[in-house]
Amino acid sequence: MAQKKRQDVFEKAMKLHKKMQGKIEVCGKASITKQTLPLLYTPGVAHVASLCAEHPEMKGVHTWTGRTIAVVSDGSAVLGLGAIGPHGALPVMEGKALLFKELGGVNAIPIVLDVHDVPSIVSAVQAIAPSFGGINLEDIAAPKCFAIEEELVRTLTIPVLHDDQHATAIVVLAGLINAHKVVKKNIVRSRIAIIGAGAAGTAIAKLLVRFGVGDVLVVDSQGLLCTNRISLTKEKEFLAQHTNKEGRCGSVLEAVVGADAVIGVSGPRSILPEHVRVMAQKPIVFALANPVPEITPEEAYKAGAWVVATGRSDFPNQINNVLAFPGIFRGALAHNVRFITDDIKLAVAKKLAGLVKNPTRQCIVPSVFDKSVASAVAHVVR
Amino acid sequence: MAQKKRQDVFEKAMKLHKKMQGKIEVCGKASITKQTLPLLYTPGVAHVASLCAEHPEMKGVHTWTGRTIAVVSDGSAVLGLGAIGPHGALPVMEGKALLFKELGGVNAIPIVLDVHDVPSIVSAVQAIAPSFGGINLEDIAAPKCFAIEEELVRTLTIPVLHDDQHATAIVVLAGLINAHKVVKKNIVRSRIAIIGAGAAGTAIAKLLVRFGVGDVLVVDSQGLLCTNRISLTKEKEFLAQHTNKEGRCGSVLEAVVGADAVIGVSGPRSILPEHVRVMAQKPIVFALANPVPEITPEEAYKAGAWVVATGRSDFPNQINNVLAFPGIFRGALAHNVRFITDDIKLAVAKKLAGLVKNPTRQCIVPSVFDKSVASAVAHVVR
Repeated sequence: MAQKKRQDVFEKAMKLHKKMQGKIEVCGKASITKQTLPLLYTPGVAHVASLCAEHPEMKGVHTWTGRTIAVVSDGSAVLGLGAIGPHGALPVMEGKALLFKELGGVNAIPIVLDVHDVPSIVSAVQAIAPSFGGINLEDIAAPKCFAIEEELVRTLTIPVLHDDQHATAIVVLAGLINAHKVVKKNIVRSRIAIIGAGAAGTAIAKLLVRFGVGDVLVVDSQGLLCTNRISLTKEKEFLAQHTNKEGRCGSVLEAVVGADAVIGVSGPRSILPEHVRVMAQKPIVFALANPVPEITPEEAYKAGAWVVATGRSDFPNQINNVLAFPGIFRGALAHNVRFITDDIKLAVAKKLAGLVKNPTRQCIVPSVFDKSVASAVAHVVR
Repeated sequence: MAQKKRQDVFEKAMKLHKKMQGKIEVCGKASITKQTLPLLYTPGVAHVASLCAEHPEMKGVHTWTGRTIAVVSDGSAVLGLGAIGPHGALPVMEGKALLFKELGGVNAIPIVLDVHDVPSIVSAVQAIAPSFGGINLEDIAAPKCFAIEEELVRTLTIPVLHDDQHATAIVVLAGLINAHKVVKKNIVRSRIAIIGAGAAGTAIAKLLVRFGVGDVLVVDSQGLLCTNRISLTKEKEFLAQHTNKEGRCGSVLEAVVGADAVIGVSGPRSILPEHVRVMAQKPIVFALANPVPEITPEEAYKAGAWVVATGRSDFPNQINNVLAFPGIFRGALAHNVRFITDDIKLAVAKKLAGLVKNPTRQCIVPSVFDKSVASAVAHVVR
């Protein structure tokens, strides 16, 4: 039945894409007449061109860069599909661009790259950077996504954000803040287990630590991250140093024993009912793998979960990074913010949590269709 | 007086740009609702993504690439401003994108590059190529523009055109065809002098030779191109071999003696009244430098010119490549044309000439504001 429904969605999606031939388009903001052409193009534009050449910072006022970003992917980690490359990534990036515009009022251009190593991706983005007011990195595999983001943040003069990492982490934190209100626990004394240490898991762990969560435990495919582990990547080494205060070793089971919350950013069946049963009272379970969550809400509740969230729109509590990214770039462009700092990320998470006036088990985050979210988020990005 | 008028245009252009904050924007083609989101984005888009990954040629049907190109410049030869770099080039490329949309219905994205040597520009464009259905190269200095175009045409699977070269050459040829009708001469027996051997001059010379003009003579800053000249670039060497049948040597004066037409693609004052006076009867003078032509129409007529064209909108006979480029890409995208061949260029030139039913001294090319031109041009691009 689920299979049939899924097939039905696929067929409808295919038809709609074929009919639309593009989910976005370019629109001119002026018509071409004998009066406007000399002002919009030669000779009038020459004066504007000279100004922007001498004062690149004026570009945001006189061109669309003040409202426009690139959504950049090499197609190495697309949705649940993996490394399908730039051609396959394009329909997804186009969808992202549509979300940026419809929810945040931000012009976003899908840029899919036919290069795949860190230096080549960095060079390509640096080369085109003067065309845009910001760079949203998207669906780039870990661990290269970390090095790419770091290098671009260091070298470019415009905001750069890998939203699979940070926008996801922000929305997870917002959801956790409200879930803790529901279970009436203090998050700064909470123990939170994260299953998965890819782009999202790493960023969530870092942000929770930065927020001051009691303890964070991160599990990758080899088990719990701890200081005993060897041959770790730079990011996992950092996590091993800054999480797991008790120095636990082992697998998912060891991580979730007594945990107040568990966050799955891994894949189907990586959280089992027996994991939920050994957690602290009133367990919080975020099963965020898409489209098949780590554990179904039904199973989780049956095992004793008190608040359950997923990445899906057909269950309550959808943890979707679309709650964060349109507003973050809208705010960054409007307020000339060059770096999306940890302080900004924490402010956005708190803002998002605060938008839900009375959190309940079924409602810990705003709706993704609430168009007031992006401007509320943008307001705190400064 | 001209100075004051120019200043006035500059001020108006600046105000308009500041007010608009971008001459183009991205528009969503669907609204985000509970019904549409699963089709336009996850999970539905996954099916479209898989299809495009396996069959990249389907991308043009299911995404905007079938209607979208990039307008790419490194800002090394912008309008009359020269090498002002990517930031300065952006307002101009944005203007070009507006023209593409308003006149040709083609989505065009301004991409300005922060790299400037041939291999780096080629690499950057290759990297982003899967994002687009075509590449319009723009305002890139000669001679590097030749190598960049050649390499991109060779390696990419989408149409690539440097419009300063080819679109200009096409419109010049269209104008010459009709000017010859006006003066009642046969263009295949005509002698045509070209003053300037940059991107435009080179492409015009090549296209006129290909069309079968009687003889073509090209003058660069060192004088007439002929087989005696040494240390020529690859393109100039080619021109020296294929033009100047009489093997003339010397400067502009030697080139224009007895010429039926002279085409200036150089700079102010490079065509003088005494040059026009030594031409054949009923001289055709195209003075295309912008904003200050090689010779003013007034001076040219006074020296005996019969048909005069410029690049400016405030004189009759505006030779503007905007007559060609929107239609060329519209046609190339619609008819899946990968290479803009010489045959296509000649067909477009003839089509453009044919759109003027009864050419006169004051009307040898269609108006740039005639929105039917692009679809007529597109029709012959196949």
